[in-house]
Amino acid sequence: MKHEDFIVAPGTKIALKQYDSEYIGHFKHKSEAKHELQEHIEHLTKHQEVLYAQNTFALLIVFQAMDAAGKDSTIKYVMSGVNPQGCQVFSFRVPSAEELDHDYLWRYVKALPERGRIGIFNRSYYEEVLVVRVHPELLNRQQLPPEVKTDRIWESRFEEINNFEKYLSQNGIIILKFFLNVSKEEQKSRFLDRINRPEKNWKFSDIKERAYWDKYMHAYEELFNHTSTVYAPWYIIPADRKWFTRLVVADIICNRLASLKLSYPKVSEVDKKQLLKAKEKLENN
Amino acid sequence: MKHEDFIVAPGTKIALKQYDSEYIGHFKHKSEAKHELQEHIEHLTKHQEVLYAQNTFALLIVFQAMDAAGKDSTIKYVMSGVNPQGCQVFSFRVPSAEELDHDYLWRYVKALPERGRIGIFNRSYYEEVLVVRVHPELLNRQQLPPEVKTDRIWESRFEEINNFEKYLSQNGIIILKFFLNVSKEEQKSRFLDRINRPEKNWKFSDIKERAYWDKYMHAYEELFNHTSTVYAPWYIIPADRKWFTRLVVADIICNRLASLKLSYPKVSEVDKKQLLKAKEKLENN
Repeated sequence: MKHEDFIVAPGTKIALKQYDSEYIGHFKHKSEAKHELQEHIEHLTKHQEVLYAQNTFALLIVFQAMDAAGKDSTIKYVMSGVNPQGCQVFSFRVPSAEELDHDYLWRYVKALPERGRIGIFNRSYYEEVLVVRVHPELLNRQQLPPEVKTDRIWESRFEEINNFEKYLSQNGIIILKFFLNVSKEEQKSRFLDRINRPEKNWKFSDIKERAYWDKYMHAYEELFNHTSTVYAPWYIIPADRKWFTRLVVADIICNRLASLKLSYPKVSEVDKKQLLKAKEKLENN
Repeated sequence: MKHEDFIVAPGTKIALKQYDSEYIGHFKHKSEAKHELQEHIEHLTKHQEVLYAQNTFALLIVFQAMDAAGKDSTIKYVMSGVNPQGCQVFSFRVPSAEELDHDYLWRYVKALPERGRIGIFNRSYYEEVLVVRVHPELLNRQQLPPEVKTDRIWESRFEEINNFEKYLSQNGIIILKFFLNVSKEEQKSRFLDRINRPEKNWKFSDIKERAYWDKYMHAYEELFNHTSTVYAPWYIIPADRKWFTRLVVADIICNRLASLKLSYPKVSEVDKKQLLKAKEKLENN
């Protein structure tokens, strides 16, 4: 599998319709991918242990998508082997009054992962150029100075977000951003499934954002074309087949962690002597 | 008093020795400035009430200085009229383990003022290019990736801080930065005073940073020459005479708030009718 198939190359302009949401690579069936996914999960578990021990880098993973694209289940499957002590998942919902009274990145910054950890944002600060762009009345809740609320606000936010991510990456916080690209048809079928199956009813919220599908796709294209950078690239992941989504996401995360060449902290000669002394004491105890 | 005397003009290079720490303008004695300071404090109180009611802007005031330059007492005097509900002062000391495990701006971002409020940073993220630069061993506590720890880290941090402040100012957070410029001689006399007067003993910590005076001055010059911007200017305030320091700081804050042309939120015709209805109900109660 080539990651270049999914990355939004920094500096290029893409159109979402070029991306096939049903793509499943060379596979013919879910069962063929099972073993590979399991391998990725095991690698991820090992990488995460070293990430934690080394305590130098943090990994921030951003998930964005339309409803029912599979964010929750992808997080659940891909992270199934990871020690929860080294992994924090944050879901962002409607902002509180306190959050609205701060700058728009504030609530996300508070939730950034510590060194040695994986932080997952299930939705993120990108909502500030998505739902807020599709429903501009939400901007009024943010109490911004009037001179900020112009058509140029989205370009400003793209630049601000790029600077923010550049700062993070320069300080050891590795960033990966995934858009789970589900088709409108597949969303419809998943919504119906949630309504028809009683045990899935709780997952169903409402379908009102579906009416804004085209506006969302435009907002997504805009942000891909402005905020996919060398230090924080966007990946557009085919999401009509959940098993393929998980496989690709796990593979990209593993690869990125492998590229860091993480290693356990080296024990100095002095510390080694201490270890031997402690061992002796314990054995004579 | 002209603010241009104290501002570090963005884009220029300054040398600290050009700034007279004993400067007291056209005044001859402390008593002459008393009335003017009182006026500033009253104006500030009024501005702050409107800032709070309008709830659109926040004001972030950064104080940096060598020990005994008068940060604490300037904050105390200048803010003496301000409603504490609309004003938060944060002092930053040695970072905790949790803070060190995050990016270096994290603990400062958490403390940013909400809209409608004045937030005061008694020392700030500028310590990250001051004390950390003078004592580079502190960088090792930050667990940064090795490729970040080069001589270019200070330039990177200046750029990161500029981007951070630009983002804040674009989102309604007004920034003022004050360096209280005390001379090494005056610091000595204040330190001796703290030792000689029992009721001031608690203020005395130690004099070990005095040994790094020249290194600090160099670090300060570097940051003034890189981070004084149109959206977040640095002011170098003469600080050998505390009364003059307070006067200038109060004057600059008042001026900046006045320039925002703050106003109480307008009550709509609908709301006015609601007010009248409520009044009627209350009177017949």
